Amino acid sequence: MNAPRDFSADPLGHGLPDYAPRPMPVAMLEALQARLGNRCSTALALREQHGRDESPFDVPPPEAVVFAENNEEVAAVLTLANEHRVPVIPYGAGTSLEGHLLAVQGGVSLDVSRMNRILRVNAEDLTVTVQAGVTRNQLNAEVRHQGLFFPIDPGADASIGGMSATRASGTNAVRYGTMKENVLGLTVATPDGRLIRTGSRARKSSAGYDLTRLYVGSEGTLGVICEVTLRLYPLPEAVSAAICSFETIDAAVRTTIAIIQMGVPIARCELLDAHAVRAVNRHDKLTLREAPMLLMEFHGSDAGVAEQAAVVQEIAADHGGTGFEWATTPEDRTRLWTARHHAYLSALQMKPGCRAVTTDTCVPISRLAESINASVEEVEASGLPYFIVGHVGDGNFHMGYLIDPAVPDERSTAEQLSARMVARAIALEGTCTGEHGIGLHKQRFLLQEAGEGAVDQMRALKAALDPRNIMNPGKIFG
Amino acid sequence: MNAPRDFSADPLGHGLPDYAPRPMPVAMLEALQARLGNRCSTALALREQHGRDESPFDVPPPEAVVFAENNEEVAAVLTLANEHRVPVIPYGAGTSLEGHLLAVQGGVSLDVSRMNRILRVNAEDLTVTVQAGVTRNQLNAEVRHQGLFFPIDPGADASIGGMSATRASGTNAVRYGTMKENVLGLTVATPDGRLIRTGSRARKSSAGYDLTRLYVGSEGTLGVICEVTLRLYPLPEAVSAAICSFETIDAAVRTTIAIIQMGVPIARCELLDAHAVRAVNRHDKLTLREAPMLLMEFHGSDAGVAEQAAVVQEIAADHGGTGFEWATTPEDRTRLWTARHHAYLSALQMKPGCRAVTTDTCVPISRLAESINASVEEVEASGLPYFIVGHVGDGNFHMGYLIDPAVPDERSTAEQLSARMVARAIALEGTCTGEHGIGLHKQRFLLQEAGEGAVDQMRALKAALDPRNIMNPGKIFG
Repeated sequence: MNAPRDFSADPLGHGLPDYAPRPMPVAMLEALQARLGNRCSTALALREQHGRDESPFDVPPPEAVVFAENNEEVAAVLTLANEHRVPVIPYGAGTSLEGHLLAVQGGVSLDVSRMNRILRVNAEDLTVTVQAGVTRNQLNAEVRHQGLFFPIDPGADASIGGMSATRASGTNAVRYGTMKENVLGLTVATPDGRLIRTGSRARKSSAGYDLTRLYVGSEGTLGVICEVTLRLYPLPEAVSAAICSFETIDAAVRTTIAIIQMGVPIARCELLDAHAVRAVNRHDKLTLREAPMLLMEFHGSDAGVAEQAAVVQEIAADHGGTGFEWATTPEDRTRLWTARHHAYLSALQMKPGCRAVTTDTCVPISRLAESINASVEEVEASGLPYFIVGHVGDGNFHMGYLIDPAVPDERSTAEQLSARMVARAIALEGTCTGEHGIGLHKQRFLLQEAGEGAVDQMRALKAALDPRNIMNPGKIFG
Repeated sequence: MNAPRDFSADPLGHGLPDYAPRPMPVAMLEALQARLGNRCSTALALREQHGRDESPFDVPPPEAVVFAENNEEVAAVLTLANEHRVPVIPYGAGTSLEGHLLAVQGGVSLDVSRMNRILRVNAEDLTVTVQAGVTRNQLNAEVRHQGLFFPIDPGADASIGGMSATRASGTNAVRYGTMKENVLGLTVATPDGRLIRTGSRARKSSAGYDLTRLYVGSEGTLGVICEVTLRLYPLPEAVSAAICSFETIDAAVRTTIAIIQMGVPIARCELLDAHAVRAVNRHDKLTLREAPMLLMEFHGSDAGVAEQAAVVQEIAADHGGTGFEWATTPEDRTRLWTARHHAYLSALQMKPGCRAVTTDTCVPISRLAESINASVEEVEASGLPYFIVGHVGDGNFHMGYLIDPAVPDERSTAEQLSARMVARAIALEGTCTGEHGIGLHKQRFLLQEAGEGAVDQMRALKAALDPRNIMNPGKIFG
């Protein structure tokens, strides 16, 4: 299981780069062990656990796993790795969907999950500073009793460091933005082992280059995010969630487009297709109507929420929406949103033993119907099982193709469908990834989208900040 | 007037760097003239006009001014400049406050003000693409009839390219964000004369490094912004503006803090001190009470605006706010906001022949009262005339010290006051500039704020993208 496979060919055309390990010298392993003791491990099970993520790829695991417990340890690991030119792959909660955590060039997995302290809540400024290993659920549990919340919620209970590194978003982004808008500052360990601070606790700044935004979304390729200062929000006075079913996906999407174009400040606007609804019904024991559905949430004052809801209900009715149901109690809402966050895992359980090839495009809102409809037509013609969930208020949706990993044809079909969907998104002036990142999976799509000139600029930045290419090498660009 | 002054000393300690011109070879001037004809000029008046901005510095003008009319011409100028290692200073509307436009290393001023076409309004997606020379007022005049607006409004009618380059904000940022949040993508000419595209028209993306955010705020030091794709917003159904006077600045600031902490989605929340009110009264022939004042605006539905206003009125009353007056007609509102936008020029007219040394700090909202109060105490003790205007909802405020440029002591006093105010902002976990940028004026403050490690990273990025240092050299870092 652990023998290197031949990754030099790329028969599926999904851009998986060569597997080209850079061996770790014994001296480095010894130095790591001297510094970290048993928090540096070469146990196979641990390495295998750290050598995969939610992507459908299999690559041999890293040579060692180290657990850092503070910024200085992170910096020390990088100093050693830089000296020995050994790759370092930052690891948080292991929930990447695009192969970010795979050790395609060998090296060390640097696990920051034990750096999980909430360092400082400044409720009066609506800011919080956390260590990178804190997860989003942990953070929300901590700040809720102060009447605050952090809105960014990728499906998994990801770490804040990982969410920063992939520029994550989730269901609330339509109202509250993504990690890009909500990270105020970072503490980063640079590849040469320095600790730097970017940003401040001020809400805005024009002080020099925006290093914060450069590290946000850099997928571990420029340095290790150690601490993150985030914006928080007051818990809204009133919250109301609603579901509404539609005859077709198209009708649900057109409802969304109208909501956004009218400027309704909707907090969440999620699409689930009939397959996704069926999956969450089974997994979460719900009885939702198994038809395309919008799952929406409104935040504001009592009157404001009522007003938004009335406007949206009217728009939905105009598009044939039926069965508008309200979930106003926190328990009902939690049940619905928990189900939504389980959609990915629920769908996997619809086909035992399967894996999902997921795509994640985002297009200008007016092109969303065209983008989804064509993708549905193509996947229906292919015969592959699939599901769709989407942060449609952003123009962002995910298609999950369920494949049997033992059947190469299925993966190949899924990759081809995904490639067509991505090419369409780019042609519609959108992006090849709204929130999952490039990782291993979308490198050629990045080139299609950004063009050679822009990717050359990115490579120049990488070379400038990580001249020995130790930070998560092989990701974003091969 | 045009003879080089000796800038090698820095007696005022404000970080003005050496004046060190890099002469332009005749071959380059000839090549520029061959390509651009009379759109390449060496006329002294034109050079002097392009060699200054709203900063209080005097530096000899650039050697030539060129007017580009399209992206390809921008790229051609950069190709030539790169070949000859001659500085290029992008020029939009000339409204920088921090010396961004000054030719401290000689070279060419590249004026893009004729690149002023609105290329494409996508009303259905709430996006627009403009050439860099389009000004914010021009843009709003163009999109208003489609029921849309662009909220970012620095005081001056700046160019969108310049606003992007300085990461500008203005009165609406508390609700709508700054240029950082509102630029979706850019077309940039790189120093080696390539044209690249960053971002897309999608609302969010995780596709590679955030080049857009790197160029936004780069102050012309990494490339020339040629085109900008922006987010637009539907004109709110209801808008209402209000003014409220307070006995003290402190009371006005504490009102603001409470509004923000309660999560009121206020669209604008501006402070004017009594000096600023007096200045705009004279300049705009208004009769506002000459006391510290909040000028606020609420956007939303009729009911939503009424609700926000009621909450705010109550908070203001709790802090002794009086004379709450409403401006609900568009004419009344325009008169108020025009006066606000004139505040800087109005204040200059209070002391004939004066110049203003302005500061622009931004702190976490809970530290705003402390920050302003201490700065007021210091300037009162100095005896210098001054005024305060602030985007206080963001924690951002400006102090303008009015100095007689012929009296070195006054400038020195102003710079010392400014330095203390900035040091205090940094100590309060804020930033040395909320929206004006670093330019020439705040280089040592950037170092204080970000630390050597982070500034080293910025320098590395600069060296990677502009290895011959032709793009606005001497700015941000010396």
